[in-house]
This record gives sequence, C-alpha cells and structure tokens, in this order.
Amino acid sequence: MSLHAQRRGAPSQPLILNAFSMNSVGHINHGLWTHPRDTSAQYNTLAYWQDLARELERGLFDGLFLADIVGVYDTYQQSAEVTLRESIQLPINDPTLVVPAMAAVTQHLGFGVTVNLSYEQPYLLARRFSTLDHLTQGRIGWNVVTGYLDSAARAMGQVQQLAHDARYDRADEFMEVVYKLWEGSWQEGAVVRDRQARVFARPDLVRPVRHHGQYFQVEGYHLSEPSVQRTPILFQAGSSGRGLRFAARHAECVFMSVQDKAATAALVRELRQEVVRAGRRPEDVKVLVGLTPVVAATERQAQEKYQEYCRYASAEAGLAHIAATAGVDFAQFQRDTPLLAQHKSNGIENSIKRLANGRENYTLGDLLDELALGGRYETVVGSPAQIVDAMQSWVDEAGVDGFNIARTVVPESYTDFIDLVVPELQNRGLHKTAYAQGSLRHKLFGQGDYLQRPHVAARCRCSQPLSAEAAAAA
Amino acid sequence: MSLHAQRRGAPSQPLILNAFSMNSVGHINHGLWTHPRDTSAQYNTLAYWQDLARELERGLFDGLFLADIVGVYDTYQQSAEVTLRESIQLPINDPTLVVPAMAAVTQHLGFGVTVNLSYEQPYLLARRFSTLDHLTQGRIGWNVVTGYLDSAARAMGQVQQLAHDARYDRADEFMEVVYKLWEGSWQEGAVVRDRQARVFARPDLVRPVRHHGQYFQVEGYHLSEPSVQRTPILFQAGSSGRGLRFAARHAECVFMSVQDKAATAALVRELRQEVVRAGRRPEDVKVLVGLTPVVAATERQAQEKYQEYCRYASAEAGLAHIAATAGVDFAQFQRDTPLLAQHKSNGIENSIKRLANGRENYTLGDLLDELALGGRYETVVGSPAQIVDAMQSWVDEAGVDGFNIARTVVPESYTDFIDLVVPELQNRGLHKTAYAQGSLRHKLFGQGDYLQRPHVAARCRCSQPLSAEAAAAA
Repeated sequence: MSLHAQRRGAPSQPLILNAFSMNSVGHINHGLWTHPRDTSAQYNTLAYWQDLARELERGLFDGLFLADIVGVYDTYQQSAEVTLRESIQLPINDPTLVVPAMAAVTQHLGFGVTVNLSYEQPYLLARRFSTLDHLTQGRIGWNVVTGYLDSAARAMGQVQQLAHDARYDRADEFMEVVYKLWEGSWQEGAVVRDRQARVFARPDLVRPVRHHGQYFQVEGYHLSEPSVQRTPILFQAGSSGRGLRFAARHAECVFMSVQDKAATAALVRELRQEVVRAGRRPEDVKVLVGLTPVVAATERQAQEKYQEYCRYASAEAGLAHIAATAGVDFAQFQRDTPLLAQHKSNGIENSIKRLANGRENYTLGDLLDELALGGRYETVVGSPAQIVDAMQSWVDEAGVDGFNIARTVVPESYTDFIDLVVPELQNRGLHKTAYAQGSLRHKLFGQGDYLQRPHVAARCRCSQPLSAEAAAAA
Repeated sequence: MSLHAQRRGAPSQPLILNAFSMNSVGHINHGLWTHPRDTSAQYNTLAYWQDLARELERGLFDGLFLADIVGVYDTYQQSAEVTLRESIQLPINDPTLVVPAMAAVTQHLGFGVTVNLSYEQPYLLARRFSTLDHLTQGRIGWNVVTGYLDSAARAMGQVQQLAHDARYDRADEFMEVVYKLWEGSWQEGAVVRDRQARVFARPDLVRPVRHHGQYFQVEGYHLSEPSVQRTPILFQAGSSGRGLRFAARHAECVFMSVQDKAATAALVRELRQEVVRAGRRPEDVKVLVGLTPVVAATERQAQEKYQEYCRYASAEAGLAHIAATAGVDFAQFQRDTPLLAQHKSNGIENSIKRLANGRENYTLGDLLDELALGGRYETVVGSPAQIVDAMQSWVDEAGVDGFNIARTVVPESYTDFIDLVVPELQNRGLHKTAYAQGSLRHKLFGQGDYLQRPHVAARCRCSQPLSAEAAAAA
C-alpha cells in the first residue's frame, strides 16, 4: 500500500481550515480592493484584524495564515508601476505585529505567520516567536520561508541572494540554532515563580546555548522562558527538491500552492516519502492547498457573484504578480503569443512549462483568462454542496489534509464561507463543531504542546540538570 | 542668559509623564516580584499589558516607555545565578509585540519602545516601526539604543561588540537609512486609494531608496505606505560625549538616568548646547529623568508603605544589575570595603567614581543601602504634595521636562500615582486634564505629526514628483 493510498477512502475526519491573508491590500486575487464592499484597504488598522479574527473564530477556523514578502514585484514591464497602482503586496506591513491584537479578542484561533529567515538574527527571531507564543498562549505558528526575490537581497545590502541550495543549507542551520534556544536553554521545571523562596528560575536548570556552525555563531541564554509550545508550530511552503527535503525535516504543515490535483498528489507522495526518509512518520506532516471559493445559496447566485467580482478583479495585476514569481516579463508578449514557443533557452522555459502544465499551445491569453479573478489559485464557484464536493475531491484525489482559503472580497468572502460552507462541511463530518482545548499544536496533532521525537527539535530538549561544574562553567 | 536659565522660573506647564516598564519581571526595583500583591510575573500575558494601558490612560499618562535589553547580566559573581533567581531582566520578551494589544484598548496613550539597532536590518526595522505607527494611529516612539553588553554581541555571533564610538557611527548611518525609507520613499499624496480610477498608489510619487554607505547598502522601496508620523517619535538615552552628540542630532526626547540633580542639570545644559550645535533649537529636545515615587495619603503612611516594600525588594539583585552596567563584580568586595581605594587602574575606576559621586569613603555598604528598594533611581517617599514638590524641584533645579515613572509593586504603584499624585499635579497646572488630539509627536510638541526641519529626517522628505526619466530609471 502506497503512502498516498493509505490516506484514500479513510473515514471522514475534520479538515484543517485556515484563512489565508496578508498584511497588505492585494494578496492572491488582485484588483478586488476596488470592489465597493471590499475593506482590504483598511489592512493598516487594528479593527480590520480584530474583526477578521472574531469572524474566523465564529467559523471555527483552525488558524489565520499570514503570508509575507520582503521585496517588490518589479519584473512586469520591468517596473513597479502596476504593483503600486493595484497594490500587489505593496505596501506590505509586518505580519507579526497584528497577531497580539487578534489574540486579545479570540481564545482558540491559531496564527501562522510567515517570516523570511534569510535576513533575521536567530537569537532575536527566537525571542519574537517565544513572545508571540506566550501572548497567544500557545497559538502561534511560523511559516518558514527563505525568500526568492533579488530585490529583497538588494534591500539588505547584498548584490543578490544566496544560491537556492545554499539558502536552504543556511536555513537548516538557522533552525538548528532556534531549536537549541527554544528547546535546550530552559529545562522543564526551570521556572518556579516561588515568592517565598525568592526563586523565579532555578539557575541549575537554565544553560546558555553554544552553537558554532558554518553560518552562525551563537552563545547565550534564550531570552524568553519556555512558552506553551516552545517551538512554534512549523509551516513550510517549499516544493522544490531541496525545499521539499527541508520541509520533510522541519515542517509540521506544508502549504502547496500547486493548481493541479494530479501534480499535487505526486508532490504529496514525494513529500511523505521524504518525511519517512527523515525518520518521521508520514502523518507527522499535514498538507494544505490554497483554494478560492465563491459561494452562494445556489449555483446560479454563485455564478452571478463570481461575474460581479470579476468585473473588479485585475487579470493584469495577477499577471504582474506571476511575472515576479516566474521571473518572466509577460509584458513583452501579445495575447495570442504561444508562450512555450518563446525563449526556449533563456532560463524562463521551466517557469512557463509549469504555468502551461502540458498544454502545447498555451498563450498569454490563456493565462490571462485563468487570472479572471486576479489570481491563479483554484477557484471554485457554486452552492455550498458544490464547494464541499470540490474540497472533498482535493482530499480524495490529491491526499491533502486541509486548505488555506484565499480571500476575494473582504470580509464578505469569509462571512459567506462561514455562513454557507461551514455548516455543509460540518454535516459531512469534515469540520469540527467546537474547538478542542490546548495549544495550536495539540489541536492539530492531539499529542501535546511540544514537538515530539523523532523531530530534530525534540532532540534539542534537555532533561538533565547541569552538573555543578557545568553550572560553574556556564 | 544661559540655555538652562531660560527654562527656570517659566510659568507652570504640563510635564511629560511616562510610565517606565519592561517586558520582564524585574526592571529597575528588583525583588519586588516576591511582594504578595505584585503581578509582574504575569508580564507574559496580554491581560497584564492591556490592564496597564487602560490604567495609564485613566491617569492621562503621555506614554508607556518600554525598556529592553538583549543579553544577560552575568558580571556579578561572574554568573547569571542571581539574575535568574531574582529575574533581573531575564527572561525578557520582545517589547514591540505587546504594543498592538495595548493600542487596541486605548486611544491616546503613547508607546516608547526600546530597540537596539546594532543587530537589526534597517530595511526590516523600518517596516516594523511603520507598522506600529499605522496600528497605533501615530502613537509610537522608538527609544534608539546601541547596546553595551558583550553577551549580546556573542549571542549574535560576534566576539565582542563594536567599539563605543564606532557603534555610534554605525548608528548614525542606520538612522540615515531609516529616515530615507520613512520620509523619502513615499511622497505626500502618493497613496490615493481611488477605486474608480483603479489607483491605490501613484507610481510617480513612490521611489526606491538608494543608500550606499560605509555600513549599509540598501536599495529598495520602503515596504510600508506613510504612517501618521512617518518617523516614529525618537527617544534616546545616551549620556556619554558621543552618545550626547548622537542624541542632539536625532532625539526628540532624551532620557537621562542620572541620580543627582546637579549632575543632571550640567548634562541638560551640555545636551542643549549640542542640540544648538546640531542646528536645532534647544526646545526641540525634551529631557526626561527616572523617578521612583512611593506615595500614600500621608507622609507617615507612605513611609510605612516604603518599609513594607523594602522587605520584599532585593538590594543584592539591584547590585547584580549595577555590576553588569558598571562592569564591576561587586561580589569580590566586603560591605565595609571603600570602593574608591580598590583597583585604581584596572578600568573600573570611572564606573565606581560615578557611583560614589564625590564621596571619598564610599563603601559597598553605602551602595547596598542606596539599593534598599532594589534599584538606584531617585526614590521619593511621601504625601502627594511631597511627591509633586520633589518633581517640581527636578524641573526647577535640573531643567528637565518630565519623568519616566518607575514601577515598584505592579500595578498598585501606578494606581497610587494616578489616584494621589495626578490630581495634585493637575491642581498645580503640571499635568493635563484631558488628552490633546493628534499623534504622539503632535501631543508632545504641538507642531504637527511629522518631524520638522532642521531635523535631519525632515530633510529626507521629498516634495518633487519623479521626472519621467527618473521614474523610468527607478
């Protein structure tokens, strides 16, 4: 029985449901900020985020997954003009800072926050995530990314970013450092808060980390006492060979932004094989895919809503976004240009092959048609039953565990989903009817608050008190 | 008329009042976490910070000033043992992350957040402060510090920190970069949010920063659109020659942690002279000092409260804190050791001279006596009128503009101050009776939301649209 087949035909169990958003105006479905009812231009206010968090908790969402990008999309027309006009992930505010305000008005909603580790100090980033885990009482996740934009590298004073594989080597070592800080510096029982005995923390149970590696030299105590989860729940989104190995080693949830079920199924299989190769069980990693549902009470009403949304969406903005991720300036082509015939040998071939997905005569016009709603995530338009059928087919055919639900018109696309799709999911046993207790990790995996062996982080946890000599030398 | 004399005898005007705290258990007055009514061990919860913020806004405090330290106090006994037992600023969580939750439950309270720029990327830190300024709607301040602990440098992979003056040279350039990002990347009027015209931002009014300096190479658009204040209001706490010049060039509020009025008066004069030398007006910089008030309805009750607090405070913890800042392991001395006679030539002489402040036979016992409340800020014990008299004398004799009020037992020391001292301050015209409208900068200086010329940041603001060629080249 293949790893994938093990998952097919399993009895219904709750999916993982995250809302997918970004601390910016445009995220995936571009141009919809111009819709009269869209509030995404208020992304820079606390009320926007607190209202969203309350709404998602009403819908028993597992979490809010916040993307981030450091750098600017300036490939299309070799400028940032469309990016600025349509607000394509620019401006983009820091995603970590909206979490505490949302945590204050919710009890259970989790938060998956994207932070690119390429330009961070592990010692300081470890403290930021520990602080978030404290303040959310164990509801924080980190979507670990290494970035891909040269514009980001230039903003950080580098001529260009590290080569792809070296980025992941450095990222592996970065993770090793933060695991040592989160898991290895403060032992269980170190913090006693004993007023009578005047002992806040036991010095014999706290030790400095001493890491001397290829990319990082870190000596010091972790600045934060242990938080509910210690290591935040780890998300990852890499799907290349090296990225997949990184995910298999570190991630607890992997987000795949592939549009095709068969391609996703193959990637899920490959990931689970890598997970096993990394010494973990296949079920130690949950797989999520992106989905853009447009739902109404009936299919016809949903189609009308979709058509109405499309009038405000911008396919060109979607194209400008894809241009940057694919590294292709699509502004150089005409609508009827067959993309695969172009530039066979100038390095953009693979990007275009991915977009064309086997279609030989794939033109720029075809791509623009796919971007009718401003983005290229699978868009499902229909009644609640049709939406849930589509979700079920992703589970059955691609072997995924859940979804990052992209926004269209904010907040109504989430409100519609909660009012219409959530009850249908619950009827079919695909969505919980109440939150479980405990940390985000415990809610998702049911095995306690901490990462468990054989995950490499768990191996960094210390269980021996310092010897007297070690304490003296510490 | 001297710069200082100009300030004396001026008619009463409201003082600047900040509460002084830290995202940690022990801050200035150590050991009081053991007091039965103290809640500082709940520093890692949102409720602790939101309750504090509401309370401070009730008292019309201008702001909450949050200290921070990256690194660990391990000079005393050459270990971190007392630091851990008494929780002397360890654990210490990230201070920026508690601000959004506090901003959500207040309307006017400002926030001054300490961030050490030595280990930050200017491109990313600029976005974090812009995000905070957006979310607080113009209530954020940055206390710019460069750090002084070698333990921090080791945690960041450096053998030791940069030399003192080089730290400030690098800091000057860091500030130049963030000014360019905050003030120079997005011009006034760039963000139009015009749904009809499909223009979120005007490309001709947004330009990338191009900075090529000695310490930083930064090319890129600022990631955040302009916030209410653009540049956060700038605090600084340096009091050395180079630190004073840095403050005179950049700071809008300078926090002096000197215990002696005459020494403070001299430093205030020196600062204002440097401010003028930097091309600014003396009143462009406000000076704050730290103060620990212990107040009750009568002097006698206040003395009783003080005695009760002292029973829980830890002079040894205060000593361990000072040991790290002074670079002297006081554990090597006896109570009756005259400190000045020790180690005339081993580099600790200046630190001890500062502590002794002219007293020839100053012993370790004298120092411990000054640390009766666990810290060395001026402690004023008395009735509301006595506290206000003491504050008034700081204004009259040292020429300061306001105070950072240190905490003792939390939250009651703030509640006492608000219930007892604030009305007395208001009676004497030394405290506002309602908040002014506008940003934190406008509230403090009354001249709009932005930094004004001749401050160097204002000179980074652009007022010319990009030419067509420049836009094409951008």
